[in-house]
Amino acid sequence: MHYPNGKRSSVNAAKPSVYNETIYSNRGMTLEEDINETNNYYRETNRAIIHKKPTPLQIVKVDYPRRSAAVIKEAYFKQTSTTDYNGVFKGRYIDFEAKETKNKTSFPISNIHQHQIDHMKQVVEHGAICFLIIRFSMLQETYYYPAEKLFIKWEAQFNGGRKSIPLDTVKKEGYIIPIQFHTRVDYLNVIEKYYM
Amino acid sequence: MHYPNGKRSSVNAAKPSVYNETIYSNRGMTLEEDINETNNYYRETNRAIIHKKPTPLQIVKVDYPRRSAAVIKEAYFKQTSTTDYNGVFKGRYIDFEAKETKNKTSFPISNIHQHQIDHMKQVVEHGAICFLIIRFSMLQETYYYPAEKLFIKWEAQFNGGRKSIPLDTVKKEGYIIPIQFHTRVDYLNVIEKYYM
Repeated sequence: MHYPNGKRSSVNAAKPSVYNETIYSNRGMTLEEDINETNNYYRETNRAIIHKKPTPLQIVKVDYPRRSAAVIKEAYFKQTSTTDYNGVFKGRYIDFEAKETKNKTSFPISNIHQHQIDHMKQVVEHGAICFLIIRFSMLQETYYYPAEKLFIKWEAQFNGGRKSIPLDTVKKEGYIIPIQFHTRVDYLNVIEKYYM
Repeated sequence: MHYPNGKRSSVNAAKPSVYNETIYSNRGMTLEEDINETNNYYRETNRAIIHKKPTPLQIVKVDYPRRSAAVIKEAYFKQTSTTDYNGVFKGRYIDFEAKETKNKTSFPISNIHQHQIDHMKQVVEHGAICFLIIRFSMLQETYYYPAEKLFIKWEAQFNGGRKSIPLDTVKKEGYIIPIQFHTRVDYLNVIEKYYM
């Protein structure tokens, strides 16, 4: 796409490779950034201590030019066996996954993997507050969707049920998270209001 | 060191580089393996859901020979801003760090870093059950040492206090964790007995 000044749109312009890599390794980057910023704000204001877990990697080859600066020369992305975020809020264990979809009318369940469901079921059984943060990026709407509801939809898809959760259902069974300045994804408000 | 049979002690023998790398990236590997095994057993027997966090890496260069198999070509170890282990036990948030020492009479506080203390203080303030697992590897003794006691020792070292915690103090203020078959480091027993 060309603009009147003859320059290409920055969206389509060639990017240095590191930029593309970041996009690739962080699908749904905007939501992730918003949540990281929110978690930082929660920590700075001493409201809760919640962190994103590092991406698990399988390290194959490491060089040691100096002991203090080991360089990993070959590694691969590994599938995580848990969700991406966890921490503590008022003594309770908090655990969640965040997903973005470009779909405007429903959330495809294929965004979630079996091992994430397994992990969520485990922590729920042990008393966690567990949920999914779903962003409909085209609508710029973000929702808190309880893990317990997700489990029902997950099972149903294998018994002739839908492969996606309609937006209306997300609204009905979940809670909208209004975008705010410091806390772009203020999920603790939902927890405080409905789960404590 | 040479043994009567003329062979060098296996401890000093040359290792394939991958072995050295593993040792390097997992200082205190034996304790880590024991804790991972214990956590697996806790999950399998549905007693608690506790995971080790992945090692955080700064990824600099990634190749995409095929989209399905991205290869990381340059990355560096990053300092973690939290502790290594966390999870949920009976609804409570559990958070701990594990350290081994070869010292036979005391635990050098230099094994712990400022950012770990900061994190531990934060989670304690929010109601976590937080502690250190200390193994005296030469004695084959493992202890549960409460974070609250660690904070006192941490501060004291900057005010003329000791730079290490004597084994006697660890015994007095902490709890021994007996080595068992499936649960090599059964720290939940201590939590159940003294913190619930």
